[in-house]
Amino acid sequence: MVVGDEILSGRTQDTNTSFIAKWLNERGVRLCEVRVVPDIQTEIVAALNALRGRYDYVFTTGGIGPTHDDITADAVAAAFGVPIDYHPQALEILNAHYAPGEFTEARKRMARIPQGAELIENPVSKAPGFHIGNVFVLAGVPMIMQAMLESLSHHIAGGQKMLSACIGGAVAEGHVAEALGILQGQYPDVSMGSYPYFRPPPRGEEGVLPVYGVNFVLRSIDPERLSAAAEAVRSMIRAHGATPEDRD
Amino acid sequence: MVVGDEILSGRTQDTNTSFIAKWLNERGVRLCEVRVVPDIQTEIVAALNALRGRYDYVFTTGGIGPTHDDITADAVAAAFGVPIDYHPQALEILNAHYAPGEFTEARKRMARIPQGAELIENPVSKAPGFHIGNVFVLAGVPMIMQAMLESLSHHIAGGQKMLSACIGGAVAEGHVAEALGILQGQYPDVSMGSYPYFRPPPRGEEGVLPVYGVNFVLRSIDPERLSAAAEAVRSMIRAHGATPEDRD
Repeated sequence: MVVGDEILSGRTQDTNTSFIAKWLNERGVRLCEVRVVPDIQTEIVAALNALRGRYDYVFTTGGIGPTHDDITADAVAAAFGVPIDYHPQALEILNAHYAPGEFTEARKRMARIPQGAELIENPVSKAPGFHIGNVFVLAGVPMIMQAMLESLSHHIAGGQKMLSACIGGAVAEGHVAEALGILQGQYPDVSMGSYPYFRPPPRGEEGVLPVYGVNFVLRSIDPERLSAAAEAVRSMIRAHGATPEDRD
Repeated sequence: MVVGDEILSGRTQDTNTSFIAKWLNERGVRLCEVRVVPDIQTEIVAALNALRGRYDYVFTTGGIGPTHDDITADAVAAAFGVPIDYHPQALEILNAHYAPGEFTEARKRMARIPQGAELIENPVSKAPGFHIGNVFVLAGVPMIMQAMLESLSHHIAGGQKMLSACIGGAVAEGHVAEALGILQGQYPDVSMGSYPYFRPPPRGEEGVLPVYGVNFVLRSIDPERLSAAAEAVRSMIRAHGATPEDRD
């Protein structure tokens, strides 16, 4: 759950989602849904309660700073129906971090943590995140969010790692779609996605699409099945007169 | 609503959301929520029904190509409880576009449109999007999505355009938070967001944050109030010993 008017206004490009998705993949956990919600308490509460009831883990980013628009901690407390107050350890961390006289009332806001939550260390700017139940509350600034996430590995009970392969080829989706559908039927344990790419036409040739191709993304927890499916996709691309290329 | 396993896996960075958000802002429409859902029909149906019941407009991206993983049109039909079949005009457009023998069965899939929907023109690769009720179904490839969106201006009853200003300054959030909260109280009709930025420390100085500052983003439909609030924020930054900078 991404909390932030700045994402919904289009001003800030969210990059936390893809970072968290990849980090979870490494641990054998799949990201199943993302919601971006505004800085409005009732919206955060409703989305969080829907998500935490449904999924094993929920990660939130944004809204835990010292200003009036940082309302995530209060919203999480409201969602869990618990009080929120200054957390002694959070106060201690922040008090030690700031120079004398610098631990302002506004900064003290960042030590307000829902009852029953455990702190998540913030090695970058010290103000902690927290986790409560199956919800992990992280900062919105990517560098800080990433540092917080790194400390969470031991909290995540992962499954088998999802492996993937990407094979591209200068084919048209409409030509290979039938063959790909048959392959998907033969490999039900390997999910096959098909992503066409286009390049904008050169000046003066607007409306023409001279370069195109398709990236086929295969995903499976079984390395042998993935490898066999990848070879089948390469054959399919060759059978359509193109050269398969393994891509990242 | 972003439909796509490729976004949830972290492989593809979604950029459609911020494009649509800005396009809507220009028309005086605010993006209120985003959901990213997997290529699973029941998930798409549930999310779409929740969103279309709640908001004036819903835009979907992704899942309208010719391959087996393109299931958005079927899911939209299911969400609206209407049948889906080949749309005569869509068949005509695609038939005219492809060379003889090239209009494959797979490509015909792209002419399957829920009953009662109107087509959205695709000047890039011809396969149309569609709109039904308050839902606009667009392609996932950004270049195609953007071209489709441009044709929709006359369908959107916009409000007053949301104006914004961004003023940055080398201040700490914890220092200005109190003053900013007071300003927000004085300008309830101007939403004030506070977004700290950090730069990674140079090598050898890890753990130190030498450069930081805050961008203050102000948003209002009233240009005079926005301008007055921006001047108040500039004064606030100056009062904290820094030089305000107007930013994009």
